[in-house]
Amino acid sequence: MDVLITGAHGQVGTAIAERLSEKPAYDFTYLDREDLPERETTVADVADYDAIRPAFDGMDAVVHLAAAPRPDLPWNEILESSIIGTYNVMEAVRDAGVEQVVFASSHHVSGNYEIKNAPELYGAHLDFKIDHTDPVRPDSYYAIAKLFGEHAGNHYVENMDAPEQFYALRLCNVSNEAYDDPYGRAEEAVEQGEYERDSPEYEQRVARRRAMWCSRRDVAQLVERCLQDETVDFDVFYGVSDNPARWFDISHARNVLGYEPQDDASEWTERPERYEA
Amino acid sequence: MDVLITGAHGQVGTAIAERLSEKPAYDFTYLDREDLPERETTVADVADYDAIRPAFDGMDAVVHLAAAPRPDLPWNEILESSIIGTYNVMEAVRDAGVEQVVFASSHHVSGNYEIKNAPELYGAHLDFKIDHTDPVRPDSYYAIAKLFGEHAGNHYVENMDAPEQFYALRLCNVSNEAYDDPYGRAEEAVEQGEYERDSPEYEQRVARRRAMWCSRRDVAQLVERCLQDETVDFDVFYGVSDNPARWFDISHARNVLGYEPQDDASEWTERPERYEA
Repeated sequence: MDVLITGAHGQVGTAIAERLSEKPAYDFTYLDREDLPERETTVADVADYDAIRPAFDGMDAVVHLAAAPRPDLPWNEILESSIIGTYNVMEAVRDAGVEQVVFASSHHVSGNYEIKNAPELYGAHLDFKIDHTDPVRPDSYYAIAKLFGEHAGNHYVENMDAPEQFYALRLCNVSNEAYDDPYGRAEEAVEQGEYERDSPEYEQRVARRRAMWCSRRDVAQLVERCLQDETVDFDVFYGVSDNPARWFDISHARNVLGYEPQDDASEWTERPERYEA
Repeated sequence: MDVLITGAHGQVGTAIAERLSEKPAYDFTYLDREDLPERETTVADVADYDAIRPAFDGMDAVVHLAAAPRPDLPWNEILESSIIGTYNVMEAVRDAGVEQVVFASSHHVSGNYEIKNAPELYGAHLDFKIDHTDPVRPDSYYAIAKLFGEHAGNHYVENMDAPEQFYALRLCNVSNEAYDDPYGRAEEAVEQGEYERDSPEYEQRVARRRAMWCSRRDVAQLVERCLQDETVDFDVFYGVSDNPARWFDISHARNVLGYEPQDDASEWTERPERYEA
């Protein structure tokens, strides 16, 4: 399969490249705003249709990850990268006749379930799970732009010639390689001077992470399950590791896609030694 | 109540003005891109935040109707008027502390239920009704921009200081005064030379209209029920007259808002004489 990855050098894109690029089944093309020395890159901004359009020719699938990467970014950046950028990607998909799109949506589309129930939610003290059929409760324009992408996918599958298949993955927390465990984000924040290790803020961050962690190999597997799927036309899946404290359903991804997460944040009973520098 | 209407000179805005402006309960301010001789207007484009912002001061409610008005309009117009415009309106609402927003969404957010089941759907031959809890199936970027507005309303109510109440009304077909009956759109098309009166296309248009008609007095009533409501924080309602052939639920609007439509397209057994020119 020829597969184009947009926003290829972010957390999710690099997880996919690490795990899947060696497999003979896939020939990846990496598109990103920035070059990366170790990976041949089509350097282009999804906000510029003409710049990205040639990269879609001959592709069997597009994994669309390019977006303003955080909820706290200003509207103009979300508008350009996530709304106009996704419009451009979908138009290029349609124009090039690409059959399959895997789209990185976000748990933030349901973010207010968390915001209104935290921090009790983090310890799995609440008997509470949401799935793809629950009403969305976006917590930011970042989340609203993700919903824009989901709706665009639905529209193109139903009303356009391409794509034929669209998968919206509402991903939870994917980290970089150095922090790919339940302590990752908390440790990152320590490094950035946000708070002390073992402070209450740190503990809460770890507790949240035990619910929200989506390991790099699990997200790569989920994307691969989409690429291999032949049954879905349009569907929405939460993407998270098999953490007991998660409040996101994964049975839909299990049943439809055969997703079998290999990681579980509760299995990490001690902080990895590498953090004790 | 001081109420600002954006896009005030369109079909819905003029229906509201006709029906509600004489009531002592309301003091309306009309905002539109274009002036209207018979109605004092704040002339401004919602795509220009600085131009519209002053009109929000002191308002108790905003009825936000301004948008690219049809599904067949090009992306750039939808982006400017409906996406950026709605962002600007919501920011102005928040900044001015307006408590209540009534937003004109559209039945097109579920448009593919119609497209995939027409024309059988029009004669009420299918036992099929959708309500606000069914998954959306947007048929266009016009519809996706309406969903953008719904999601923004949800986000502001949950995460911002204002507004406290947001009503998304998924309106069906509201016409101008001259065509405010089930024959309206079909007659408009005859006048524009699209097809002959009593042709199959004409009959299908009338049949569709018997399902989709939302009379001017019914839409004005629905908006007034929102303005008078004190219970909703965020909610979504389909807005249509009490047509037996409709496939949109109105029990939610009845139960929550006390909406009592006065019109029913099936009661028009003959084409009004005024069309027989």
